[in-house]
Amino acid sequence: MMTFEVTIYVTWKNGVLDPQGAAVTESLHKLGYEGVESVSISKMMQVRLTAEKEEVEAQVTEMCEKLLANPVIEDYTFEIEEVISL
Amino acid sequence: MMTFEVTIYVTWKNGVLDPQGAAVTESLHKLGYEGVESVSISKMMQVRLTAEKEEVEAQVTEMCEKLLANPVIEDYTFEIEEVISL
Repeated sequence: MMTFEVTIYVTWKNGVLDPQGAAVTESLHKLGYEGVESVSISKMMQVRLTAEKEEVEAQVTEMCEKLLANPVIEDYTFEIEEVISL
Repeated sequence: MMTFEVTIYVTWKNGVLDPQGAAVTESLHKLGYEGVESVSISKMMQVRLTAEKEEVEAQVTEMCEKLLANPVIEDYTFEIEEVISL
């Protein structure tokens, strides 16, 4: 068993309306930042977990599909790093 | 004036409780992922904006301080990329 630090990015699929991003764009315009064309807000999750090396990727994919992302409207990508304890 | 794609990461300061991350950790445990030690959930914002090259960095810092992050409990970092239109 080893420890891993996984960074998961959950973003909106193309064409899906991002209401939070639209609200922030409007607020920035009101604050005078007229040059802002668009804002898209996504989630970044840092997960620390212990698992067998050959199982991490499958486990993280499963966690994304089941809980962390909504595959209907969101895409996800992730990076896995091994934590070296000294 | 040029167009830039700025990626802003807004993360929790060390020691600040992340209730959403704690809830997700618990849900993952309930789903059987016992190896998960912690989950930290942050925001990633992609901002597309038009500005003078020498002003982008100052403008984005200002936007973070005023609206996008809460400097009391959140840290932010960002990357600026120039958009080349062909």
